[in-house]
Amino acid sequence: MTVHNFQPTHYHTNIGPHAPVLRVQSGDTIVTTTVDAGGQDASGKQITPRGNPMTGPFYVEGAEPGDTLVVRLDKLTPNRPTGWTRKMLAPNVVDPDYVTQLPWPGKDESTLAIWNIDNAAGTATLDDTTTSLGTFTLPLAPMVGCFGVAPARGEAISTATSAQHGGNMDYRGFVEGVTVYFPVLTEGALFHIGDGHALQGDGEIVSTGIEISFDVQVTLSVQKGKRIGWPRGENADYIFTVGNARPLDQCVQHATTEMLRWLQTDFGLDPVGANILMGQCVEYDLGNIFDPACTMVCKVPKRVLR
Amino acid sequence: MTVHNFQPTHYHTNIGPHAPVLRVQSGDTIVTTTVDAGGQDASGKQITPRGNPMTGPFYVEGAEPGDTLVVRLDKLTPNRPTGWTRKMLAPNVVDPDYVTQLPWPGKDESTLAIWNIDNAAGTATLDDTTTSLGTFTLPLAPMVGCFGVAPARGEAISTATSAQHGGNMDYRGFVEGVTVYFPVLTEGALFHIGDGHALQGDGEIVSTGIEISFDVQVTLSVQKGKRIGWPRGENADYIFTVGNARPLDQCVQHATTEMLRWLQTDFGLDPVGANILMGQCVEYDLGNIFDPACTMVCKVPKRVLR
Amino acid sequence: MTVHNFQPTHYHTNIGPHAPVLRVQSGDTIVTTTVDAGGQDASGKQITPRGNPMTGPFYVEGAEPGDTLVVRLDKLTPNRPTGWTRKMLAPNVVDPDYVTQLPWPGKDESTLAIWNIDNAAGTATLDDTTTSLGTFTLPLAPMVGCFGVAPARGEAISTATSAQHGGNMDYRGFVEGVTVYFPVLTEGALFHIGDGHALQGDGEIVSTGIEISFDVQVTLSVQKGKRIGWPRGENADYIFTVGNARPLDQCVQHATTEMLRWLQTDFGLDPVGANILMGQCVEYDLGNIFDPACTMVCKVPKRVLR
Amino acid sequence: MTVHNFQPTHYHTNIGPHAPVLRVQSGDTIVTTTVDAGGQDASGKQITPRGNPMTGPFYVEGAEPGDTLVVRLDKLTPNRPTGWTRKMLAPNVVDPDYVTQLPWPGKDESTLAIWNIDNAAGTATLDDTTTSLGTFTLPLAPMVGCFGVAPARGEAISTATSAQHGGNMDYRGFVEGVTVYFPVLTEGALFHIGDGHALQGDGEIVSTGIEISFDVQVTLSVQKGKRIGWPRGENADYIFTVGNARPLDQCVQHATTEMLRWLQTDFGLDPVGANILMGQCVEYDLGNIFDPACTMVCKVPKRVLR
Repeated sequence: MTVHNFQPTHYHTNIGPHAPVLRVQSGDTIVTTTVDAGGQDASGKQITPRGNPMTGPFYVEGAEPGDTLVVRLDKLTPNRPTGWTRKMLAPNVVDPDYVTQLPWPGKDESTLAIWNIDNAAGTATLDDTTTSLGTFTLPLAPMVGCFGVAPARGEAISTATSAQHGGNMDYRGFVEGVTVYFPVLTEGALFHIGDGHALQGDGEIVSTGIEISFDVQVTLSVQKGKRIGWPRGENADYIFTVGNARPLDQCVQHATTEMLRWLQTDFGLDPVGANILMGQCVEYDLGNIFDPACTMVCKVPKRVLR
Repeated sequence: MTVHNFQPTHYHTNIGPHAPVLRVQSGDTIVTTTVDAGGQDASGKQITPRGNPMTGPFYVEGAEPGDTLVVRLDKLTPNRPTGWTRKMLAPNVVDPDYVTQLPWPGKDESTLAIWNIDNAAGTATLDDTTTSLGTFTLPLAPMVGCFGVAPARGEAISTATSAQHGGNMDYRGFVEGVTVYFPVLTEGALFHIGDGHALQGDGEIVSTGIEISFDVQVTLSVQKGKRIGWPRGENADYIFTVGNARPLDQCVQHATTEMLRWLQTDFGLDPVGANILMGQCVEYDLGNIFDPACTMVCKVPKRVLR
Repeated sequence: MTVHNFQPTHYHTNIGPHAPVLRVQSGDTIVTTTVDAGGQDASGKQITPRGNPMTGPFYVEGAEPGDTLVVRLDKLTPNRPTGWTRKMLAPNVVDPDYVTQLPWPGKDESTLAIWNIDNAAGTATLDDTTTSLGTFTLPLAPMVGCFGVAPARGEAISTATSAQHGGNMDYRGFVEGVTVYFPVLTEGALFHIGDGHALQGDGEIVSTGIEISFDVQVTLSVQKGKRIGWPRGENADYIFTVGNARPLDQCVQHATTEMLRWLQTDFGLDPVGANILMGQCVEYDLGNIFDPACTMVCKVPKRVLR
Repeated sequence: MTVHNFQPTHYHTNIGPHAPVLRVQSGDTIVTTTVDAGGQDASGKQITPRGNPMTGPFYVEGAEPGDTLVVRLDKLTPNRPTGWTRKMLAPNVVDPDYVTQLPWPGKDESTLAIWNIDNAAGTATLDDTTTSLGTFTLPLAPMVGCFGVAPARGEAISTATSAQHGGNMDYRGFVEGVTVYFPVLTEGALFHIGDGHALQGDGEIVSTGIEISFDVQVTLSVQKGKRIGWPRGENADYIFTVGNARPLDQCVQHATTEMLRWLQTDFGLDPVGANILMGQCVEYDLGNIFDPACTMVCKVPKRVLR
């Protein structure tokens, strides 16, 4: 179990079969950094073009299509004193006839709000007291917006969107301590990560969380011969599955089907038992609703399993 | 503030401009009962045809289109020892190519599971130990699946679905203690209620919660001249708005727009402030995803308001 | 086969179990008139509130749930010299971020364009030469926007939308000479008709066709014991089925399933034959895309049947 | 204007920034071949893996992001005596509760139907007289299912789906004689083409047209500085725009917005004129509805322009 300290020198704005920046063994830990969605690093300098630039990819020895990549999110820490959000909801999340009433910025007005991040206090504070919010402080809840593995059949998919391979899911449940499972779709899995948020509302409906660069530590391992269809995860209280598609109804179909399968293959449930349990115990969370593809997460509490 | 004890003698399977069963003053409390979704009462006897039969409608004196009806859910108590659920997920909530793998019941097999309800212990226990779930017990969380007011322009809308007037929203957040706001769309508001669930998973994905008859107490009052677009609600921790439509993306649009309006009219927020706050603080819950119309709930925590 | 001349005295803006204005025998013909979507009659006078007011309902003796109502559209003739359209696309048919670029009318500007209708010449000409269209003339193609039968379980559904019972489908294929089939959902079928268009583009994307009052002749008959699920129709070249729902993908599902059933029950096709034929011969038309519910029409050419 | 005869030696199952197989000048013509969706060539031999393998990419000198690539489909000719289709509708195009009633093939049954192609007679005849269709012959209508240019930001998008760059649109209007316009998104445009159909129903609802290898002739040219957002095209009677997304409603939004822009930039229409014209003259066609992304085509008849 080696710990690799990796300092990125370039980034990718799609997740695909790029040349690996590092090869690791199953079980190894990687300590690295990510730039923010706009390409700015810990010093606030723009070092790569905008659009959710990814650190990686990391090649995991022995990972082959048909396996599962296990990603433990060991540490996710904002590493600079400010982050930014947009100030207007995405037009596609309001009623079409309300779009003209959104606060469209004037020609020379900034579309961004700056937030001061205080890791010690665990807070983000809006650096603008001119809105009706006044001094507005929220608790930090750092999460990773975009991560995953290279897709199948040589695809390279924009980090603006998401699919079976993961991608820009913007699910606020992807926090420190969570374990995430991705289907391995190409040799070495080719893990990418980026787009850290100091905190975020459901759906990323202003088209950003509080965008910020991160110090990241992840541990990658391979489950050989374990075939899954969509990203999965677990935290202390829940197992969950992730459907990435559009519209949301299809996300629900993907995530629900994946959970039905999981309950039957790994938790000893017969079909009727799995259906009854899901019917009365399932919970759904909304990930991204702003992107081309959206995300719905299907959760089952661990307390009802076994 | 009068308390009315009302014993229903007939029920409606659509919400519309039916003859009122009782006229009450704004602020009055109604103590009554509801049958279950299948038309069975507290004794388990089928006394009216199936399909979410409604108790009511109740006419609230002084309520006119352009007002808001305030419904306080004072008491929601299952009033018999058993409830029932379906045993197979609705085909529309799984991937189309998985539909054939659902546990379709054999010709003479029951599609229903029976649950024993223990109000004292606060539990529902599956009355069938033959599935892999074995003895399976869940905590009660009684909620009302279908309620609302008569729609506009003389419509009478099936209790299988939902819209601006409320209806079959199947949101597990509609529990005892919650206050719900409906737009008054016709004279007297004409409040209907029914379809109690002893508990339910998100989405009502097996097409039922644990269906059961209820003892119900609600307090109805009118906010004159308060015009809202969609159902709203509040509990101890959140204010929330409810979008009923299909697909889910459109529910999100309705609920989000309604919340934007509410924050600006009642919570002193300017447009930019409301947009920034929603972007980082909003949460969404899934109500019904099985019906013709689905439900998404947009929530803002009270702690970030003011 | 009686011909009834019926002069309406009141109208309905929902399709439901209203008192019949006339009772006819199966096979009878009705000659009547419809007002335009705004409630204006042949003289241009507003005689009833706006919102697709319906003429009817007509009770057909012997029609019962489980039967089919056959509606032959014998004559559909605009009966006044002007019609009107809106001048801006509905915000929901363009990209959300384009909505602000639509030509929103100024405060005191009319949202309507007037068209001169010449039945003899068979033309509609825009009565406004100030736009870049100059003198703009189109061929008439009169069609009925909204018609159908009373829904099941006592529902009364707004004429703004559509469902199994028909309603506001706005399909430009509903022209003179076409035969339409509706499922009978309540006793007497209760046929309603209105919302004539001198012509219309697909989708009714400006939220109107050329709205105009009509002289109408229809012949109604009952097919006893013929059970269908969605509106069907036929013209000289095609049989077709109509799916009314939202989103469009679900309209396609409804219409396609209904066609699959029809091919197997009435055209002697086995399941594999019906599937192969539809795969290579099916055509789809778009009806309304502006309403709460949209419409897709599934067509099979008669030349490939038998 | 050079004519290049190009014989492919390898194929791609995604459209992306692959090494060009040929560099041509703007205005040049390419004569080449395509394999069928399954990777089979003119002799029926499988020479490359299945999944809509593309011939190309062809690099057009001088094409840069912000330009438009003009593709004239000069010749599209099936070049072998048989093609194939599937025999069952895709489960996602029928009602979810009808899925189990589709004619699922038995374990050892073929899912494919073979069709005999007669270019001289212009017919395709089902090579199976055991279904209720008997001897079943349809007129040929050769079209190209999947073609387009490399996407932006280095993406490589599966030929199973479609987006701004084109891709698997399966629109039966892409026939010989049609001119198609693609936004150039990367240097050289990198044009790919494949997936020929001898004929196809709307929507590709059995998940195939009659799949067959083609002799292809296309002429490629560049419009410098002409920026478009989505694929466009024109034939003798119509100009049209193509929206590729999911659900269909969003395809309509993309295609409609693109047409609104086109009418205003190239056909001398002011915003109100463009809106009025589209409202009453627009037509929509359905391309693919089976894929992850679907396709809707927005058409305006040339006779109403100018």
